[in-house]
Amino acid sequence: VIIIKIGGGAAINMPGIVEDLKALQEPCVIVHGANALRDEIAEKLQSPKQVVTSVSGYDSVLSDQTAIDMILMSYAGLRNKRIVELCQLSGINAVGLTGIDGRLVQGARNKGIRVREGGKTLIKRDFSGKPQSVDATLLRLLLDNGYVPVLTIPIVDEQGYAINSENDDIVTCLHVALQADKIIQFIEAPGLLADRDDERSTFTRLTRGDLENQEQLASGRIKRKLLAMKRLLDAGSARIVIADGRGESPLRDALHGAGTLIE
Amino acid sequence: VIIIKIGGGAAINMPGIVEDLKALQEPCVIVHGANALRDEIAEKLQSPKQVVTSVSGYDSVLSDQTAIDMILMSYAGLRNKRIVELCQLSGINAVGLTGIDGRLVQGARNKGIRVREGGKTLIKRDFSGKPQSVDATLLRLLLDNGYVPVLTIPIVDEQGYAINSENDDIVTCLHVALQADKIIQFIEAPGLLADRDDERSTFTRLTRGDLENQEQLASGRIKRKLLAMKRLLDAGSARIVIADGRGESPLRDALHGAGTLIE
Repeated sequence: VIIIKIGGGAAINMPGIVEDLKALQEPCVIVHGANALRDEIAEKLQSPKQVVTSVSGYDSVLSDQTAIDMILMSYAGLRNKRIVELCQLSGINAVGLTGIDGRLVQGARNKGIRVREGGKTLIKRDFSGKPQSVDATLLRLLLDNGYVPVLTIPIVDEQGYAINSENDDIVTCLHVALQADKIIQFIEAPGLLADRDDERSTFTRLTRGDLENQEQLASGRIKRKLLAMKRLLDAGSARIVIADGRGESPLRDALHGAGTLIE
Repeated sequence: VIIIKIGGGAAINMPGIVEDLKALQEPCVIVHGANALRDEIAEKLQSPKQVVTSVSGYDSVLSDQTAIDMILMSYAGLRNKRIVELCQLSGINAVGLTGIDGRLVQGARNKGIRVREGGKTLIKRDFSGKPQSVDATLLRLLLDNGYVPVLTIPIVDEQGYAINSENDDIVTCLHVALQADKIIQFIEAPGLLADRDDERSTFTRLTRGDLENQEQLASGRIKRKLLAMKRLLDAGSARIVIADGRGESPLRDALHGAGTLIE
Protein backbone atom coordinates (compact mmCIF):
# COMPACT_ATOMS: atom_id res chain seq x y z
CA VAL A 1 0.00 0.00 0.00
CA ILE A 2 1.08 3.57 -0.75
CA ILE A 3 -0.15 6.42 1.43
CA ILE A 4 -0.24 9.74 -0.41
CA LYS A 5 -0.64 12.82 1.75
CA ILE A 6 -1.52 16.00 -0.08
CA GLY A 7 -1.12 19.34 1.65
CA GLY A 8 -3.91 21.89 1.69
CA GLY A 9 -2.03 24.71 -0.01
CA ALA A 10 -3.50 26.56 -2.97
CA ALA A 11 -0.56 25.82 -5.31
CA ILE A 12 -0.77 22.00 -5.17
CA ASN A 13 -1.32 20.58 -8.69
CA MET A 14 -4.14 18.19 -7.89
CA PRO A 15 -5.00 17.29 -11.52
CA GLY A 16 -1.31 16.45 -12.08
CA ILE A 17 -1.20 14.16 -9.06
CA VAL A 18 -4.40 12.38 -10.10
CA GLU A 19 -3.13 12.02 -13.68
CA ASP A 20 0.00 10.29 -12.32
CA LEU A 21 -2.16 8.02 -10.14
CA LYS A 22 -3.44 6.26 -13.27
CA ALA A 23 -0.03 4.65 -13.81
CA LEU A 24 0.23 3.43 -10.21
CA GLN A 25 0.06 -0.35 -9.78
CA GLU A 26 -0.16 -0.59 -5.99
CA PRO A 27 -3.31 0.05 -3.95
CA CYS A 28 -3.24 3.52 -2.41
CA VAL A 29 -4.90 5.68 0.21
CA ILE A 30 -5.01 9.46 -0.20
CA VAL A 31 -5.05 11.82 2.78
CA HIS A 32 -5.56 15.49 2.01
CA GLY A 33 -5.78 18.89 3.63
CA ALA A 34 -7.71 22.00 2.57
CA ASN A 35 -6.44 24.81 4.76
CA ALA A 36 -6.23 27.42 1.98
CA LEU A 37 -9.81 26.61 0.94
CA ARG A 38 -11.03 26.60 4.53
CA ASP A 39 -9.51 30.04 5.17
CA GLU A 40 -11.07 31.36 1.96
CA ILE A 41 -14.57 30.06 2.81
CA ALA A 42 -14.29 31.13 6.45
CA GLU A 43 -13.35 34.63 5.36
CA LYS A 44 -16.30 34.84 2.95
CA LEU A 45 -18.61 33.58 5.68
CA GLN A 46 -17.02 36.06 8.11
CA SER A 47 -16.12 33.26 10.46
CA PRO A 48 -12.49 33.92 11.44
CA LYS A 49 -10.45 31.52 13.54
CA GLN A 50 -10.96 31.88 17.28
CA VAL A 51 -7.59 32.18 19.02
CA VAL A 52 -7.27 31.92 22.81
CA THR A 53 -4.20 32.47 24.98
CA SER A 54 -3.63 29.93 27.71
CA VAL A 55 -2.60 30.89 31.26
CA SER A 56 0.87 29.58 30.41
CA GLY A 57 1.07 32.04 27.50
CA TYR A 58 0.50 29.84 24.45
CA ASP A 59 -1.85 30.84 21.62
CA SER A 60 -4.19 28.13 20.38
CA VAL A 61 -6.83 28.01 17.66
CA LEU A 62 -10.17 27.10 19.21
CA SER A 63 -12.15 24.58 17.15
CA ASP A 64 -15.67 25.50 18.19
CA GLN A 65 -18.73 24.11 16.40
CA THR A 66 -18.55 26.90 13.82
CA ALA A 67 -14.94 25.96 13.07
CA ILE A 68 -16.02 22.32 12.62
CA ASP A 69 -18.76 23.52 10.23
CA MET A 70 -16.05 25.28 8.19
CA ILE A 71 -13.99 22.08 8.12
CA LEU A 72 -17.01 20.04 7.02
CA MET A 73 -17.76 22.46 4.17
CA SER A 74 -14.18 22.86 2.93
CA TYR A 75 -12.32 19.62 3.75
CA ALA A 76 -15.14 17.02 3.78
CA GLY A 77 -17.36 18.74 1.23
CA LEU A 78 -15.71 20.82 -1.46
CA ARG A 79 -12.12 19.60 -1.46
CA ASN A 80 -12.73 15.91 -0.77
CA LYS A 81 -15.46 15.52 -3.40
CA ARG A 82 -13.63 17.55 -6.04
CA ILE A 83 -10.66 15.18 -5.61
CA VAL A 84 -13.02 12.20 -5.90
CA GLU A 85 -14.47 13.77 -9.06
CA LEU A 86 -10.97 14.30 -10.54
CA CYS A 87 -10.28 10.62 -9.84
CA GLN A 88 -13.57 9.49 -11.41
CA LEU A 89 -12.81 11.60 -14.51
CA SER A 90 -9.53 9.65 -14.77
CA GLY A 91 -11.19 6.26 -14.29
CA ILE A 92 -9.95 5.87 -10.71
CA ASN A 93 -12.77 4.61 -8.50
CA ALA A 94 -12.27 6.86 -5.48
CA VAL A 95 -14.39 6.91 -2.33
CA GLY A 96 -14.20 10.08 -0.21
CA LEU A 97 -14.35 9.64 3.56
CA THR A 98 -13.69 11.55 6.77
CA GLY A 99 -12.42 10.00 9.98
CA ILE A 100 -15.96 9.96 11.39
CA ASP A 101 -17.28 7.74 8.57
CA GLY A 102 -17.28 4.19 9.86
CA ARG A 103 -15.30 5.50 12.88
CA LEU A 104 -12.29 5.23 10.58
CA VAL A 105 -9.96 7.47 12.56
CA GLN A 106 -10.60 7.35 16.28
CA GLY A 107 -9.19 10.11 18.43
CA ALA A 108 -9.08 11.38 21.98
CA ARG A 109 -10.59 14.81 22.47
CA ASN A 110 -8.32 17.43 24.03
CA LYS A 111 -9.04 18.13 27.69
CA GLY A 112 -9.30 21.87 27.21
CA ILE A 113 -7.20 25.00 27.49
CA ARG A 114 -6.85 26.94 30.78
CA VAL A 115 -7.56 30.60 30.10
CA ARG A 116 -8.05 33.76 32.19
CA GLU A 117 -11.36 35.50 31.49
CA GLY A 118 -12.91 38.29 33.55
CA GLY A 119 -10.48 37.68 36.41
CA LYS A 120 -11.22 33.95 36.57
CA THR A 121 -9.40 30.87 35.32
CA LEU A 122 -11.63 28.77 33.06
CA ILE A 123 -11.18 25.60 31.06
CA LYS A 124 -12.16 26.18 27.43
CA ARG A 125 -12.90 22.89 25.73
CA ASP A 126 -13.14 22.71 21.96
CA PHE A 127 -13.65 20.04 19.33
CA SER A 128 -10.08 19.03 18.64
CA GLY A 129 -7.90 16.13 19.59
CA LYS A 130 -5.29 13.55 18.67
CA PRO A 131 -5.93 10.46 16.55
CA GLN A 132 -5.29 7.29 18.53
CA SER A 133 -5.95 4.56 15.99
CA VAL A 134 -7.22 3.77 12.51
CA ASP A 135 -9.80 1.01 12.14
CA ALA A 136 -8.56 -0.76 9.04
CA THR A 137 -11.80 -2.75 8.49
CA LEU A 138 -13.46 -0.27 6.16
CA LEU A 139 -10.16 0.65 4.46
CA ARG A 140 -9.34 -3.00 3.76
CA LEU A 141 -12.86 -3.61 2.42
CA LEU A 142 -12.39 -0.72 0.01
CA LEU A 143 -8.79 -1.54 -1.00
CA ASP A 144 -9.57 -5.23 -1.50
CA ASN A 145 -12.41 -4.30 -3.83
CA GLY A 146 -10.41 -1.91 -6.00
CA TYR A 147 -11.56 1.39 -4.50
CA VAL A 148 -9.18 4.26 -3.68
CA PRO A 149 -10.04 5.76 -0.27
CA VAL A 150 -9.66 9.56 -0.14
CA LEU A 151 -9.48 10.59 3.49
CA THR A 152 -9.67 13.90 5.34
CA ILE A 153 -10.61 15.50 8.68
CA PRO A 154 -12.61 15.59 10.91
CA ILE A 155 -11.93 12.46 12.94
CA VAL A 156 -14.20 10.97 15.61
CA ASP A 157 -13.71 11.27 19.38
CA GLU A 158 -14.53 8.74 22.13
CA GLN A 159 -18.19 9.79 22.22
CA GLY A 160 -18.78 10.18 18.50
CA TYR A 161 -18.17 13.91 18.06
CA ALA A 162 -16.44 15.21 14.95
CA ILE A 163 -13.14 16.77 16.03
CA ASN A 164 -10.34 18.64 14.30
CA SER A 165 -6.92 17.00 14.15
CA GLU A 166 -3.49 17.11 12.50
CA ASN A 167 -3.10 15.27 9.20
CA ASP A 168 0.48 14.28 10.08
CA ASP A 169 -0.80 12.38 13.12
CA ILE A 170 -3.54 10.75 11.01
CA VAL A 171 -0.94 9.55 8.51
CA THR A 172 1.08 8.00 11.35
CA CYS A 173 -2.00 6.11 12.62
CA LEU A 174 -2.78 5.01 9.05
CA HIS A 175 0.75 3.67 8.70
CA VAL A 176 0.42 1.74 11.99
CA ALA A 177 -2.82 0.16 10.70
CA LEU A 178 -1.77 -0.54 7.10
CA GLN A 179 2.06 -0.85 7.30
CA ALA A 180 2.54 1.06 4.06
CA ASP A 181 5.48 0.37 1.74
CA LYS A 182 5.76 3.97 0.63
CA ILE A 183 4.48 7.25 2.03
CA ILE A 184 4.56 10.26 -0.29
CA GLN A 185 3.83 13.70 1.12
CA PHE A 186 3.19 16.64 -1.19
CA ILE A 187 3.96 20.13 0.04
CA GLU A 188 4.52 23.54 -1.56
CA ALA A 189 8.33 23.25 -1.57
CA PRO A 190 10.86 20.98 -3.29
CA GLY A 191 11.17 18.93 -0.08
CA LEU A 192 12.21 19.51 3.53
CA LEU A 193 14.29 22.67 3.64
CA ALA A 194 17.19 23.43 6.01
CA ASP A 195 16.42 27.13 5.51
CA ARG A 196 12.70 27.76 4.94
CA ASP A 197 13.48 30.81 2.80
CA ASP A 198 15.87 29.01 0.47
CA GLU A 199 14.53 26.27 -1.82
CA ARG A 200 18.13 25.31 -2.70
CA SER A 201 18.55 24.11 0.89
CA THR A 202 16.36 21.03 0.24
CA PHE A 203 17.56 17.87 1.97
CA THR A 204 17.83 15.01 -0.51
CA ARG A 205 18.14 12.27 2.07
CA LEU A 206 17.60 12.11 5.82
CA THR A 207 18.17 9.20 8.19
CA ARG A 208 16.52 8.89 11.58
CA GLY A 209 19.68 10.31 13.15
CA ASP A 210 19.62 13.28 10.77
CA LEU A 211 16.00 13.96 11.75
CA GLU A 212 16.99 14.06 15.43
CA ASN A 213 19.93 16.39 14.81
CA GLN A 214 17.88 18.74 12.64
CA GLU A 215 15.01 18.72 15.11
CA GLN A 216 17.30 20.07 17.83
CA LEU A 217 18.38 22.95 15.56
CA ALA A 218 14.91 23.77 14.28
CA SER A 219 11.95 25.66 15.72
CA GLY A 220 8.28 26.31 14.99
CA ARG A 221 6.59 24.55 12.09
CA ILE A 222 9.71 22.83 10.77
CA LYS A 223 10.47 21.37 14.22
CA ARG A 224 6.91 19.98 14.40
CA LYS A 225 7.27 18.50 10.93
CA LEU A 226 10.61 16.81 11.78
CA LEU A 227 9.12 15.39 14.96
CA ALA A 228 6.13 14.07 12.96
CA MET A 229 8.54 12.42 10.49
CA LYS A 230 10.40 10.73 13.35
CA ARG A 231 7.13 9.37 14.73
CA LEU A 232 6.14 8.18 11.26
CA LEU A 233 9.44 6.30 10.87
CA ASP A 234 8.93 4.72 14.28
CA ALA A 235 5.44 3.51 13.26
CA GLY A 236 6.89 1.04 10.74
CA SER A 237 9.52 0.80 8.08
CA ALA A 238 8.60 2.61 4.89
CA ARG A 239 10.12 4.70 2.16
CA ILE A 240 8.99 8.25 3.02
CA VAL A 241 9.29 10.96 0.40
CA ILE A 242 8.43 14.61 0.98
CA ALA A 243 8.07 16.16 -2.43
CA ASP A 244 6.89 19.15 -4.39
CA GLY A 245 3.16 19.10 -5.15
CA ARG A 246 3.38 22.05 -7.54
CA GLY A 247 5.13 20.48 -10.55
CA GLU A 248 3.61 19.06 -13.72
CA SER A 249 3.93 15.41 -12.63
CA PRO A 250 4.30 15.54 -8.85
CA LEU A 251 3.74 11.84 -8.17
CA ARG A 252 5.87 10.55 -11.03
CA ASP A 253 8.70 12.86 -9.95
CA ALA A 254 8.39 11.80 -6.30
CA LEU A 255 8.55 8.13 -7.27
CA HIS A 256 11.64 8.86 -9.37
CA GLY A 257 13.87 10.49 -6.80
CA ALA A 258 12.61 14.06 -6.43
CA GLY A 259 12.15 15.56 -2.98
CA THR A 260 13.48 14.50 0.40
CA LEU A 261 13.86 10.78 1.02
CA ILE A 262 13.59 9.64 4.63
CA GLU A 263 14.47 6.07 5.55
CA VAL B 1 -33.46 -3.37 3.71
CA ILE B 2 -35.21 -0.13 4.66
CA ILE B 3 -34.57 3.03 2.64
CA ILE B 4 -35.10 6.19 4.67
CA LYS B 5 -35.34 9.40 2.67
CA ILE B 6 -35.07 12.60 4.68
CA GLY B 7 -36.13 15.89 3.12
CA GLY B 8 -33.86 18.90 3.23
CA GLY B 9 -36.26 21.22 5.06
CA ALA B 10 -35.15 23.17 8.12
CA ALA B 11 -37.89 21.75 10.40
CA ILE B 12 -36.95 18.06 10.07
CA ASN B 13 -36.12 16.59 13.49
CA MET B 14 -32.90 14.83 12.60
CA PRO B 15 -31.85 13.92 16.17
CA GLY B 16 -35.30 12.37 16.67
CA ILE B 17 -34.99 10.26 13.53
CA VAL B 18 -31.49 9.08 14.49
CA GLU B 19 -32.66 8.29 18.04
CA ASP B 20 -35.40 6.06 16.57
CA LEU B 21 -32.85 4.37 14.28
CA LYS B 22 -31.24 2.74 17.32
CA ALA B 23 -34.29 0.48 17.75
CA LEU B 24 -34.31 -0.58 14.08
CA GLN B 25 -33.42 -4.23 13.47
CA GLU B 26 -33.17 -4.23 9.67
CA PRO B 27 -30.20 -2.89 7.69
CA CYS B 28 -30.96 0.56 6.32
CA VAL B 29 -29.76 3.15 3.84
CA ILE B 30 -30.38 6.85 4.47
CA VAL B 31 -30.82 9.33 1.61
CA HIS B 32 -31.01 12.98 2.60
CA GLY B 33 -31.47 16.44 1.16
CA ALA B 34 -30.17 19.80 2.37
CA ASN B 35 -31.99 22.43 0.33
CA ALA B 36 -32.68 24.79 3.25
CA LEU B 37 -29.01 24.63 4.27
CA ARG B 38 -27.84 25.05 0.67
CA ASP B 39 -29.99 28.17 0.23
CA GLU B 40 -28.69 29.59 3.51
CA ILE B 41 -25.02 29.04 2.61
CA ALA B 42 -25.51 30.23 -0.98
CA GLU B 43 -27.10 33.43 0.31
CA LYS B 44 -24.24 34.07 2.75
CA LEU B 45 -21.74 33.45 -0.05
CA GLN B 46 -23.79 35.68 -2.35
CA SER B 47 -24.14 32.89 -4.85
CA PRO B 48 -27.83 32.88 -5.81
CA LYS B 49 -29.38 30.25 -8.06
CA GLN B 50 -28.96 30.88 -11.78
CA VAL B 51 -32.33 30.63 -13.52
CA VAL B 52 -32.62 30.53 -17.32
CA THR B 53 -35.72 30.61 -19.48
CA SER B 54 -35.80 28.15 -22.36
CA VAL B 55 -37.01 29.09 -25.85
CA SER B 56 -40.16 27.10 -25.09
CA GLY B 57 -40.81 29.31 -22.06
CA TYR B 58 -39.85 27.10 -19.14
CA ASP B 59 -37.72 28.37 -16.24
CA SER B 60 -34.89 26.08 -15.11
CA VAL B 61 -32.27 26.33 -12.40
CA LEU B 62 -28.83 26.16 -13.97
CA SER B 63 -26.39 23.96 -12.03
CA ASP B 64 -23.11 25.61 -13.00
CA GLN B 65 -19.84 24.74 -11.26
CA THR B 66 -20.54 27.30 -8.54
CA ALA B 67 -23.90 25.65 -7.86
CA ILE B 68 -22.14 22.26 -7.59
CA ASP B 69 -19.67 23.85 -5.13
CA MET B 70 -22.66 24.93 -3.01
CA ILE B 71 -24.06 21.38 -3.13
CA LEU B 72 -20.70 19.92 -2.12
CA MET B 73 -20.41 22.28 0.84
CA SER B 74 -23.99 21.93 2.09
CA TYR B 75 -25.19 18.43 1.11
CA ALA B 76 -21.93 16.43 0.94
CA GLY B 77 -20.07 18.42 3.59
CA LEU B 78 -22.07 19.98 6.37
CA ARG B 79 -25.37 18.10 6.28
CA ASN B 80 -24.04 14.63 5.42
CA LYS B 81 -21.29 14.63 8.03
CA ARG B 82 -23.45 16.14 10.77
CA ILE B 83 -25.92 13.27 10.19
CA VAL B 84 -23.03 10.79 10.35
CA GLU B 85 -21.89 12.45 13.58
CA LEU B 86 -25.41 12.20 15.07
CA CYS B 87 -25.39 8.51 14.18
CA GLN B 88 -21.94 7.95 15.71
CA LEU B 89 -23.07 9.71 18.90
CA SER B 90 -25.91 7.15 19.04
CA GLY B 91 -23.63 4.19 18.40
CA ILE B 92 -24.79 3.75 14.78
CA ASN B 93 -21.78 3.17 12.53
CA ALA B 94 -22.73 5.44 9.63
CA VAL B 95 -20.68 6.06 6.48
CA GLY B 96 -21.48 9.23 4.55
CA LEU B 97 -21.28 9.06 0.76
CA THR B 98 -22.32 10.95 -2.34
CA GLY B 99 -23.27 9.35 -5.65
CA ILE B 100 -19.79 10.08 -7.03
CA ASP B 101 -18.06 8.02 -4.33
CA GLY B 102 -17.38 4.60 -5.80
CA ARG B 103 -19.60 5.66 -8.77
CA LEU B 104 -22.47 4.68 -6.49
CA VAL B 105 -25.20 6.54 -8.37
CA GLN B 106 -24.57 6.74 -12.10
CA GLY B 107 -26.51 9.28 -14.09
CA ALA B 108 -26.88 10.70 -17.57
CA ARG B 109 -26.07 14.38 -17.87
CA ASN B 110 -28.81 16.59 -19.30
CA LYS B 111 -28.26 17.60 -22.91
CA GLY B 112 -28.72 21.32 -22.24
CA ILE B 113 -31.38 23.99 -22.37
CA ARG B 114 -32.11 25.99 -25.55
CA VAL B 115 -32.11 29.67 -24.67
CA ARG B 116 -32.25 32.99 -26.56
CA GLU B 117 -29.34 35.29 -25.77
CA GLY B 118 -28.37 38.43 -27.67
CA GLY B 119 -30.64 37.52 -30.58
CA LYS B 120 -29.19 34.01 -30.93
CA THR B 121 -30.39 30.59 -29.85
CA LEU B 122 -27.78 28.82 -27.71
CA ILE B 123 -27.61 25.52 -25.88
CA LYS B 124 -26.74 26.07 -22.21
CA ARG B 125 -25.38 22.91 -20.69
CA ASP B 126 -25.08 22.58 -16.94
CA PHE B 127 -24.05 19.91 -14.45
CA SER B 128 -27.37 18.22 -13.83
CA GLY B 129 -28.93 14.98 -14.93
CA LYS B 130 -30.99 11.92 -14.16
CA PRO B 131 -29.76 8.90 -12.21
CA GLN B 132 -29.79 5.76 -14.37
CA SER B 133 -28.59 3.08 -11.97
CA VAL B 134 -27.18 2.38 -8.54
CA ASP B 135 -24.10 0.15 -8.29
CA ALA B 136 -24.98 -2.00 -5.29
CA THR B 137 -21.39 -3.33 -4.84
CA LEU B 138 -20.24 -0.70 -2.36
CA LEU B 139 -23.64 -0.53 -0.63
CA ARG B 140 -23.74 -4.30 -0.15
CA LEU B 141 -20.15 -4.30 1.19
CA LEU B 142 -21.16 -1.68 3.74
CA LEU B 143 -24.52 -3.23 4.68
CA ASP B 144 -23.06 -6.75 4.98
CA ASN B 145 -20.44 -5.39 7.39
CA GLY B 146 -22.85 -3.55 9.66
CA TYR B 147 -22.37 -0.02 8.36
CA VAL B 148 -25.27 2.38 7.67
CA PRO B 149 -24.72 4.21 4.36
CA VAL B 150 -25.85 7.86 4.44
CA LEU B 151 -26.24 9.03 0.86
CA THR B 152 -26.70 12.41 -0.81
CA ILE B 153 -26.10 14.32 -4.05
CA PRO B 154 -24.17 14.92 -6.27
CA ILE B 155 -24.25 11.83 -8.47
CA VAL B 156 -21.72 10.95 -11.20
CA ASP B 157 -22.29 11.35 -14.96
CA GLU B 158 -21.01 9.17 -17.84
CA GLN B 159 -17.63 10.93 -17.84
CA GLY B 160 -17.10 11.21 -14.11
CA TYR B 161 -18.43 14.72 -13.47
CA ALA B 162 -20.36 15.50 -10.31
CA ILE B 163 -23.91 16.44 -11.31
CA ASN B 164 -27.01 17.64 -9.51
CA SER B 165 -30.04 15.36 -9.47
CA GLU B 166 -33.43 14.72 -7.83
CA ASN B 167 -33.42 12.69 -4.63
CA ASP B 168 -36.76 11.08 -5.59
CA ASP B 169 -35.14 9.60 -8.71
CA ILE B 170 -32.13 8.42 -6.68
CA VAL B 171 -34.44 6.61 -4.25
CA THR B 172 -36.13 4.85 -7.19
CA CYS B 173 -32.73 3.67 -8.53
CA LEU B 174 -31.74 2.55 -5.01
CA HIS B 175 -34.95 0.54 -4.77
CA VAL B 176 -34.28 -1.12 -8.14
CA ALA B 177 -30.79 -2.11 -6.93
CA LEU B 178 -31.65 -3.19 -3.38
CA GLN B 179 -35.36 -4.20 -3.63
CA ALA B 180 -36.18 -2.61 -0.28
CA ASP B 181 -38.92 -3.99 1.97
CA LYS B 182 -39.88 -0.55 3.28
CA ILE B 183 -39.27 2.97 2.07
CA ILE B 184 -39.92 5.79 4.54
CA GLN B 185 -39.87 9.37 3.31
CA PHE B 186 -39.81 12.24 5.78
CA ILE B 187 -41.26 15.58 4.74
CA GLU B 188 -42.44 18.72 6.51
CA ALA B 189 -46.11 17.70 6.48
CA PRO B 190 -48.16 14.91 8.06
CA GLY B 191 -48.08 13.00 4.77
CA LEU B 192 -49.24 13.56 1.18
CA LEU B 193 -51.90 16.25 1.23
CA ALA B 194 -54.90 16.56 -1.11
CA ASP B 195 -54.86 20.31 -0.40
CA ARG B 196 -51.33 21.62 0.21
CA ASP B 197 -52.66 24.34 2.52
CA ASP B 198 -54.64 21.99 4.73
CA GLU B 199 -52.77 19.44 6.86
CA ARG B 200 -56.10 17.75 7.69
CA SER B 201 -56.33 16.69 4.03
CA THR B 202 -53.58 14.06 4.54
CA PHE B 203 -54.15 10.83 2.61
CA THR B 204 -53.87 7.86 4.95
CA ARG B 205 -53.64 5.24 2.22
CA LEU B 206 -53.10 5.38 -1.55
CA THR B 207 -53.12 2.55 -4.06
CA ARG B 208 -51.44 2.73 -7.43
CA GLY B 209 -54.84 3.59 -8.96
CA ASP B 210 -55.34 6.40 -6.44
CA LEU B 211 -51.92 7.82 -7.36
CA GLU B 212 -52.93 7.93 -11.02
CA ASN B 213 -56.25 9.60 -10.29
CA GLN B 214 -54.68 12.18 -7.99
CA GLU B 215 -51.89 12.86 -10.45
CA GLN B 216 -54.43 13.86 -13.11
CA LEU B 217 -56.04 16.34 -10.69
CA ALA B 218 -52.76 17.76 -9.32
CA SER B 219 -50.25 20.26 -10.66
CA GLY B 220 -46.75 21.55 -9.90
CA ARG B 221 -44.72 20.01 -7.09
CA ILE B 222 -47.47 17.68 -5.86
CA LYS B 223 -47.95 16.28 -9.39
CA ARG B 224 -44.20 15.61 -9.63
CA LYS B 225 -44.24 13.92 -6.24
CA LEU B 226 -47.20 11.68 -7.21
CA LEU B 227 -45.47 10.72 -10.45
CA ALA B 228 -42.28 9.90 -8.50
CA MET B 229 -44.30 7.69 -6.13
CA LYS B 230 -45.82 5.83 -9.08
CA ARG B 231 -42.35 5.19 -10.52
CA LEU B 232 -41.14 4.04 -7.11
CA LEU B 233 -44.01 1.54 -6.84
CA ASP B 234 -43.21 0.27 -10.33
CA ALA B 235 -39.54 -0.29 -9.36
CA GLY B 236 -40.46 -3.13 -6.99
CA SER B 237 -43.00 -4.02 -4.35
CA ALA B 238 -42.42 -2.22 -1.06
CA ARG B 239 -44.31 -0.60 1.77
CA ILE B 240 -43.90 3.11 1.11
CA VAL B 241 -44.70 5.59 3.85
CA ILE B 242 -44.57 9.36 3.49
CA ALA B 243 -44.51 10.78 6.97
CA ASP B 244 -43.90 13.83 9.09
CA GLY B 245 -40.23 14.45 9.87
CA ARG B 246 -41.01 17.16 12.40
CA GLY B 247 -42.40 15.13 15.32
CA GLU B 248 -40.63 13.88 18.41
CA SER B 249 -40.24 10.30 17.13
CA PRO B 250 -40.65 10.55 13.36
CA LEU B 251 -39.37 7.07 12.48
CA ARG B 252 -41.21 5.26 15.27
CA ASP B 253 -44.43 7.01 14.29
CA ALA B 254 -43.94 6.25 10.59
CA LEU B 255 -43.38 2.56 11.37
CA HIS B 256 -46.55 2.55 13.49
CA GLY B 257 -49.05 3.86 10.99
CA ALA B 258 -48.51 7.64 10.82
CA GLY B 259 -48.39 9.37 7.45
CA THR B 260 -49.51 8.23 4.02
CA LEU B 261 -49.16 4.54 3.20
CA ILE B 262 -48.70 3.67 -0.46
CA GLU B 263 -48.88 0.05 -1.56
